[in-house]
Formats: sequence, structure tokens, C-alpha cells
Amino acid sequence: MKEAEQVGGGSSRVKVPGDVTAPLGFQAGGVACGLKPEGLDLGFLVCEVPAVSAAVYTKNQFRAAPLLVTQESLVHEGLLQAVVVNSGNANACTGERGLADARRIRQEAARRLGVPEHRVAVASTGVIGEFLPVAKLVKGIQDVPLAKEQGGKDFAAAICTTDTRLKTAQVSFEVEGRQVTLAGAAKGAGMIHPNMATMLAFLTTDAAVDRQALEQALQEAVDESFNMISVDGDTSTNDMVLVMASGLAGNAPLSPEHPEWAAFVQSLTELCKELAKQIARDGEGATHLIEVQVDGATDRQMARRVARSVVQSNLVKTAVFGGDANWGRIVMAIGNCGYPIMPQRVAVWLGEVQVVREGLPTDYEEEAATAQLAPEVVRIRVHLGMGEASAIAWGCDLSEEYVRINGSYRT
Amino acid sequence: MKEAEQVGGGSSRVKVPGDVTAPLGFQAGGVACGLKPEGLDLGFLVCEVPAVSAAVYTKNQFRAAPLLVTQESLVHEGLLQAVVVNSGNANACTGERGLADARRIRQEAARRLGVPEHRVAVASTGVIGEFLPVAKLVKGIQDVPLAKEQGGKDFAAAICTTDTRLKTAQVSFEVEGRQVTLAGAAKGAGMIHPNMATMLAFLTTDAAVDRQALEQALQEAVDESFNMISVDGDTSTNDMVLVMASGLAGNAPLSPEHPEWAAFVQSLTELCKELAKQIARDGEGATHLIEVQVDGATDRQMARRVARSVVQSNLVKTAVFGGDANWGRIVMAIGNCGYPIMPQRVAVWLGEVQVVREGLPTDYEEEAATAQLAPEVVRIRVHLGMGEASAIAWGCDLSEEYVRINGSYRT
Repeated sequence: MKEAEQVGGGSSRVKVPGDVTAPLGFQAGGVACGLKPEGLDLGFLVCEVPAVSAAVYTKNQFRAAPLLVTQESLVHEGLLQAVVVNSGNANACTGERGLADARRIRQEAARRLGVPEHRVAVASTGVIGEFLPVAKLVKGIQDVPLAKEQGGKDFAAAICTTDTRLKTAQVSFEVEGRQVTLAGAAKGAGMIHPNMATMLAFLTTDAAVDRQALEQALQEAVDESFNMISVDGDTSTNDMVLVMASGLAGNAPLSPEHPEWAAFVQSLTELCKELAKQIARDGEGATHLIEVQVDGATDRQMARRVARSVVQSNLVKTAVFGGDANWGRIVMAIGNCGYPIMPQRVAVWLGEVQVVREGLPTDYEEEAATAQLAPEVVRIRVHLGMGEASAIAWGCDLSEEYVRINGSYRT
Repeated sequence: MKEAEQVGGGSSRVKVPGDVTAPLGFQAGGVACGLKPEGLDLGFLVCEVPAVSAAVYTKNQFRAAPLLVTQESLVHEGLLQAVVVNSGNANACTGERGLADARRIRQEAARRLGVPEHRVAVASTGVIGEFLPVAKLVKGIQDVPLAKEQGGKDFAAAICTTDTRLKTAQVSFEVEGRQVTLAGAAKGAGMIHPNMATMLAFLTTDAAVDRQALEQALQEAVDESFNMISVDGDTSTNDMVLVMASGLAGNAPLSPEHPEWAAFVQSLTELCKELAKQIARDGEGATHLIEVQVDGATDRQMARRVARSVVQSNLVKTAVFGGDANWGRIVMAIGNCGYPIMPQRVAVWLGEVQVVREGLPTDYEEEAATAQLAPEVVRIRVHLGMGEASAIAWGCDLSEEYVRINGSYRT
């Protein structure tokens, strides 16, 4: 696999790799507590001031204990000074004891920093249905060194499970003539050993942002990014995206009334898209990032559904893996979106080659179409010819390696 | 693979294999026209009298030409005397010419039998986006021999594409002291070379049935059977289930007012379930039939969604393939159903072994749980603890062979 720098391409402003400690006010660190066989497994992200914060949680009905405890913290006043993240154990399907364990972790982190418990969030990723080794984590929280730069790198490493590389990015832009920075670290998705599915992302910024506005911006950014990627279609019990805004850039708090609001939302969205693409590209056994752009839908919801229908289709995914310019499978996936489509208006491109026009195959050259599936990033474009709405979804191909990883880990 | 007799188990009344020519009034046949490299590829099913008929079509927005032409025939008076089915070419994404071709096939069949064109239905399965070799098919229609028994077998073979075995069943029961028979032949699902996804089923009966009632019965039966199976989650452009009732058993026409109506609907449903299970079990690369039973849902729709969410999960499918008693993936798939679930009430069984109680793992023995994944039919049962509604869905595991078949056919 090549370096992550080549993934993006959408925005030249987003920098890869990035560092969650780049924005003013943040330190971080990672430590090995022995939850994973090797490597860092406890990450600590700290802000020197109470940071205006917001989170988006999994839609899975089995919401894991750490998410419930983070929610508890955030509803209090919406300010956080720290996040504790462990990998190796998801603390999911652990009932009342799991909740108590998550609160104990939160308590220990609050104690170390001398802040109220509700200023601490917690997150976990790893095996489902096993209790947290609380003593190990308590010791880890006491021991974890905090720093800029290296601390950010260690944090990004500590939150990983089966990820084959770190997922980070950052972006800077100007507000009121001051530079503000947004950064993020993520882990995800796909499942191994036995249930490390979780998609987690932690975002930091030194911009001052109104709390309610931050929630709104995060939801918008997540809808365009993390909610538009699919590795295997399954949503984990532990998925969470969290953003902390220290406000130390000193700007007037951003909100929809602020003239630079749109720029902030756009930057946050681009950051999330970059991290989301890094996740999709690192799907288990994946050899290609697949980007599906849908134009010409009657509304945004329809565009999103069609894009996701194509990117989630096992048949499209295996075709991309096999280097097979199989437009029929794309058409079939479009037709399965659940929205009324007008087949005679549909156009499909594989990369630069148009393979379907007005619902019928063009007389494209097989070789030219096949060549579009060679790059690491495979682009599929669909035009529905019904309206003006667009959406983009990302996913990865489905390889024999995926089945091998997910089917045979115990045998 | 073992004989299909062992798939069912639900109803002892359904007989496997079956024969679409078993009900009074039907003959059938198959012939090789050269659409497939080898084997029969044109099937002809004929009724000596106009049969009361009904059909259910794919929900895919790209509905192929033969489905549109069959619809044309059926809206006329709801009576059919013949169905022509070809394999090897789907006549899908073929535009106006595809429609004309399908009508030409219909015309030729009507001519041979001396019946009006609207008494003939057509169906196709195979490659998408290529025009039908009409001359070959016209000759085939003229040549195909019609017979009982062997004709039924040839018909069942002619409709197959990548199926590894014939899919047939029949059931008999009494109405007003007379024996009536229902029978069916099916092909399906999964995709190979390059787009032979179609699920087709043709059902015959000698019962007399009211036309509107037959439509209603078919929809109910399909909802419980073909709509509850999943091989790869994709619905084809050509899926169709068609039933023809000759009425030659001589009973008073069945309708909801008839005392044996419920028995008829149940028999039709059992027949469809048996064929559906045969299809799921023959999924590409499949090594197990997976049966997911969901109880305790607040309503039927919720039960169906949960059952399908579990049976469609790539992670559950690969776990079954790998013989991994991974209850966490099942819980995750339940949680992804989109309905509000009460996690603390959820129970899960793998075969005979309860692995989850009140949302938490039981202290089951790993070996005992793993053993439940050994049989060819793997049973997963979920109790949601919220109400009284139930549903069953069927699918198959996801093997490396699936990816190999679907990803590498051209390389």
C-alpha cells in the first residue's frame, strides 16, 4: 500500500498526516496496558481548557457502555477536557458492570487531571462481550505521558485495532485574520478477531465555536463523510465521532451567524471526508478504494441512497476486485436503491469511460473500460438524469482475503 | 452436496423433487438453442386450457423486457396458456429492441399453440445488455417437444444458469374431497458470468382459483419465501414468480370465502418456501444454508427486518463459513435493523445453544456452540422479548469461493 497522501485529491488544503495536538491547547499520549498482545492500547487526549464539544454516536441499537457514559458527560454542559480511548476491548454487551467500568475509567482520568468527571469522555474498541480489565486501564491512565507531536502520533496508534496504518489529517484556514487549525485521528472499520469493527474519530480544533452550532456542523460533516463509507455494511456498537474545540485561537465564537461559518463547516467536512476515505481504503483485504459519485438525482436523499447502494453491492465490490468492467452489476445496484429511477435516462462512467447511456450499454472498448479499474482509487460515476442533486460514497472492493480474515480466524 | 430433500424439514407434505407437469392440464419441455455453451436453454410450459394466472415481479427499477411483456399479457384477462423461458441471455437493458424481441418470442409461441398472444408469458435469464438471438429462439419454440414428466424435468433444466442442481417441489392436498396438486420449478440466485443473477419460479396447479384471490395468495406466499432469502443482497432486473391454475381438478373456485382457502394459501406458501430454500442453499460458493428465526418482535415487519439484517450480514455469513460461533456479529446485525430494539431483552441461540441472554453472553461452552455450525443447515434463533411477532429468513454463508467466482471470471 502506498502512503495515505494519495487518497484525498479532493481538497488540496487537507494535510496528511495530521496531528490531533496541532490545534492550540491539546496534548495527547498513548501507552501499552496489555489489552492487546502488543502495541499501544490506551490513548489519552487532553485539552488545557474546557473545550466546547459534540459527538455523533452509532445508530446500532446495541450502544456500548462507553458511548452511554460519554453521552452522560456531554449532556451535562457540553464541555470536555479529556478523552480516554482503549483498544482491545469494546466494553460492549457488558450490561450494568460495563457501565460501572466505563465510569470508573472516566473517574480515574478526571482525578489525574483534577477536572470534574463530566469533563471526560471515554471510548472503547475491540472484543465484544468481555469485561474491561479495569486495573490495567487505571494504571495506564496514571502512566500515560502527555505531549504535543509524539503524543498525537501515539494517540493515533493507541486507538487502532486491525488497522494497517494510522489515519490522521489536519487542515488550517483563517478566521478573522487568525489561523485556526482542525485535526483528527481515526480508526476503523471492518471486523477481525472477533469483533473489532468500531469506527472511531477524534477531532480537535482551536477555533472558538458555539456549542449548538458545533453539534450541527459535526452532524453535517459526518453525514457527508463517515456516513457515506461502507466496508461491509455493518455498523458497530461502538462507533463514535467526537470533536473538541479549545477556542484558543481567540476568534469570536463561530455559529451560522458568523461570516466564516460556511468555511468552518466546509473545512470540518473535508477533514472528515479525508479520514473517512482513509478508513474505507484500509478495509479488510481491500485492494481498491471505490468512489461512487451520483449526479442528477431528484433530491439529496435519493443521491445518497443510490451511491450507497452501488458502493455496498457485493457484486460491484467483487467485480472491482476482479478488474471486471461489469456495468450490468452497477445498473442492478442502482435499480435496487428503493427510489423510482428512470432507466432510459441513466448514464454510467467507469473512470473516464462511459459504459451506459440512456440505460443502454455504449459501444465502449472493453480494454479501455477495464483499464479504469487498475488504479488504486476506482471511480464510478452515475447520472440519473432526473434532477440536480448529488452525493458521493466511498467503499472498498471485496477480496478473497476479506473472507479469509473474517471467516477463518479461529480455524 | 446432499439431496435437496433434506433442506425443508418444515413441512412433511412438500415433496422433492417435483414436477410442474404433475398438476392436471400441463405439459412442458426444453430444448438447446445454442444460447448457452451447452445444455438446454429454452423451456416451454403449456396448459391445455386457459389457466388463471398471476405474477410477482422484481422490485429492481431496471425491469427487463420480458417482465414488461408478461405484464402486458397478464393485464389483458389474467389467463395464460404458455410460458416461454430462455436462459443464457436476460434481454435486460436492451431498450425498445428488447421489447420487440420479447414480443416476437411471445408471438411465435402463440402461433405454435394457436392461442392469442396475450395468453403467453415470457421470461429470460442470463447476460445483461445483449440482444436476444431471436432466430435461434424462434426455431427452438418450433422444435421443443412437449410432454409430461420428462418435459417437466427438461423445463426445470432449461431455465437454469449457474445453478448446480435442479430446483423443484410439489405438494398435494384435498379440496372438497378431490386431490389438487401444486408444483414448481425455480432457478436462482447469485451472479456469475457476468450477470446471471435472476431468480425465477414457475408454479402450476390444477386447483380452480379465483383470479384476484390467486394474486393475493401468490403475494402472501412470495413474501414469506422468495422475499425472505438472500444470497448476496442484490435483486436482479429479471426476477419473477409466476403461477398458473388450470382449474382441471374441478373444485369450486378457491377464494377467501372458500372453506379450504387457508389450506391452499398454506400449501402454496410451503411450496414457495421449499423452492426458496433450495435457491438459498445453492448460492454461489455456499457451504451452508443459514436459517434465521426471529421471535418476540412487536410486529411482523420488524421481525422480517431483523431476520433479514442477520442473514444478509457479511460478517455473520463469513463467521458461519469459518465455523466461528461469533454471537457478537449476530447482535451487531440485530442492532442494525433500523428498528428500536431493547438490548437487555435480547436472546440468541446458535442451534440448540443459547449464547446471549438479556443482551449479555451466557456462559456457554465454546465447543458446544461451535458444533452448532457444523450441520449443512445452520440455525440461528433470536428472541427480541418485545412482542409476539415472528419471521424466518434464509441465506447462505460467504466463502472465498464466492469472491473467486464473482471476482475473477474474466481474469
